Amino acid sequence: MVTMRDVAERAGVSIATVSFLLNDTKPVTATTRARIEAAMAELGYRRNVVARALASRRTHIIAMAYPALDHKFGFSAAEFFTSAADAARKQDYHLVLWPVGNDGTELKELVGQGLVDGVVLMEVQLDDPRVTVLQETSTPFALIGRTSSLEGLAHVDIDFDRTVEDAVGHLYELGHRRIVLISGNLTDPVFSTYGPYVRSESAYRRVAAEYGLEIVVMESSGSTQSGQEAMAQLVEAHPDTTAVLIVNEFAALGAVAGLNRLGYKVPEDISVLPLLMAPEMAALTNPQLTIMRTPGPELGQLGTESLIRQVEGADPLPPQLVPAKLYPGATVAGPRAPRSKAGAGRRAARKARS
Amino acid sequence: MVTMRDVAERAGVSIATVSFLLNDTKPVTATTRARIEAAMAELGYRRNVVARALASRRTHIIAMAYPALDHKFGFSAAEFFTSAADAARKQDYHLVLWPVGNDGTELKELVGQGLVDGVVLMEVQLDDPRVTVLQETSTPFALIGRTSSLEGLAHVDIDFDRTVEDAVGHLYELGHRRIVLISGNLTDPVFSTYGPYVRSESAYRRVAAEYGLEIVVMESSGSTQSGQEAMAQLVEAHPDTTAVLIVNEFAALGAVAGLNRLGYKVPEDISVLPLLMAPEMAALTNPQLTIMRTPGPELGQLGTESLIRQVEGADPLPPQLVPAKLYPGATVAGPRAPRSKAGAGRRAARKARS
Repeated sequence: MVTMRDVAERAGVSIATVSFLLNDTKPVTATTRARIEAAMAELGYRRNVVARALASRRTHIIAMAYPALDHKFGFSAAEFFTSAADAARKQDYHLVLWPVGNDGTELKELVGQGLVDGVVLMEVQLDDPRVTVLQETSTPFALIGRTSSLEGLAHVDIDFDRTVEDAVGHLYELGHRRIVLISGNLTDPVFSTYGPYVRSESAYRRVAAEYGLEIVVMESSGSTQSGQEAMAQLVEAHPDTTAVLIVNEFAALGAVAGLNRLGYKVPEDISVLPLLMAPEMAALTNPQLTIMRTPGPELGQLGTESLIRQVEGADPLPPQLVPAKLYPGATVAGPRAPRSKAGAGRRAARKARS
Repeated sequence: MVTMRDVAERAGVSIATVSFLLNDTKPVTATTRARIEAAMAELGYRRNVVARALASRRTHIIAMAYPALDHKFGFSAAEFFTSAADAARKQDYHLVLWPVGNDGTELKELVGQGLVDGVVLMEVQLDDPRVTVLQETSTPFALIGRTSSLEGLAHVDIDFDRTVEDAVGHLYELGHRRIVLISGNLTDPVFSTYGPYVRSESAYRRVAAEYGLEIVVMESSGSTQSGQEAMAQLVEAHPDTTAVLIVNEFAALGAVAGLNRLGYKVPEDISVLPLLMAPEMAALTNPQLTIMRTPGPELGQLGTESLIRQVEGADPLPPQLVPAKLYPGATVAGPRAPRSKAGAGRRAARKARS
């Protein structure tokens, strides 16, 4: 069994210094710390985390819980994750990703082992069992997202109201009066209480009503395929639509491809504006998507900072909502004159050529 | 401080039973185990991991080290990760993702804390400092990827030779004789010794020579944007190209969008065949990409099993190479007759219309 003495010798420091570091009882210079940690690593010293946990109850490791098996880990998720990892690193913490299911079972097992100082929750559901687990185990945590009752919960989230207001407002100013929302599939148990779908839809219903627009909400399952299918249904059921707002980033990509294949030009025939997307993804379609840019980098950082403040005994950051901002592309323009047989003819001709 | 007694009482079992579980000294039924772990979680019992580490030197947690700040965490990475997490779960281990840089510094800090039983290394470089760290700390590990010297290293990887042979062979049979490889940017220090670029390129050079094809290798930086730029350079520098193989999945997406914007039809004018891509991603382009499908699900599982075998004192799995297999889409077809002014005219016309 490797001892503190072995570590001290290898690092060329006193045992006391090693103990100061392990127990956080006295400051140690960065160089000394590096030397000691290198020595511990080389010797395979396995107890500093314990010593720290028992002394300070801290491991300087925090986890981001992301239900990677239920929620596709796409470009936006990667933005949240990498900015959170960055923010943790800047404050001398390590962030790890836990791909635990969102029913709380695995999360309970992991936090029960006391390996991490706290948890950042991603893909929050309105009524989220993971919150109960973290409260029962008195684990510090911060939500990136919102449950329906936020009493005393540290959280940051997308400002869906502002995002939808800005998106609809932009389209309205361009002259659009037939604006449809493609939301998620609320009959799917995994997503029926998924904040982004629920909040985007209620914001859309409110804002559309304020503008005196007809309210049309259609579903997609969050795959590119379902985005294509949604467009096929849209042009059948609501042929006078001039613009679509789409919540899911994968469905939005499929929507553009789908409209192209149906012989509709984007944006001339129909404007497409995703409500939440990473710029990386906007470059994938032709033409490049105009998007409301997911504030992943901002929220990943804020959520992590809010958690670390709690870990260190301070108050969390006050709750913050950050809107997705309009990010220019080429899939949004003013609507053309109301559809005509000629218009249909043009589309048919285009379709035949392609 | 919560004690074993508290846990035993809460779980309604004897202290001995709790100890059997913690120290792996006697088998405990799944139900009892669940009851005890639930009790530990509820009480915030923080020492079982220690007890286990001291007794059995095992935490039943393994880490996947992925340099998420250097390497975009895309769909293929997500496939490796989720299949690895699944494989770990099936064997009663938890897999966590460590987004540590690939210079080994952070990895050393984390493994030095003895939190995990072993590490799966992703995005392996030909000469990878992380391997040295894991050897020096005698941490069990498995590579998903290959260093240049594999002496005694447990590894699984993509079979780049077979993958490129199958891809070139498929295009050749369709009649293609001008097949260009878009590889990575080998002047970028992060990627200059990155296995997939180096191995794909050498395989391409060998196979193209065997088929008597002109060897043309161009670079991309691994972003959709750079994939678009590569296509602009391609049609200028090598106008007679009829097919492109692309290593990076993001560059491949950009390439299709880029060719469309340049007025080239895919696959009529140029066939596009990514060498490594997840099907999820293939559906993002219009038309849907024909791809060589990254064996992420297979390799994530094999790498994890190989690691767990070592953690449990058995020999690792024998090294395995798995090729990417052709996965049908609509971006590969036979070449049309050699380009003509008329052809250029058609493209110009298409471009003007779009």
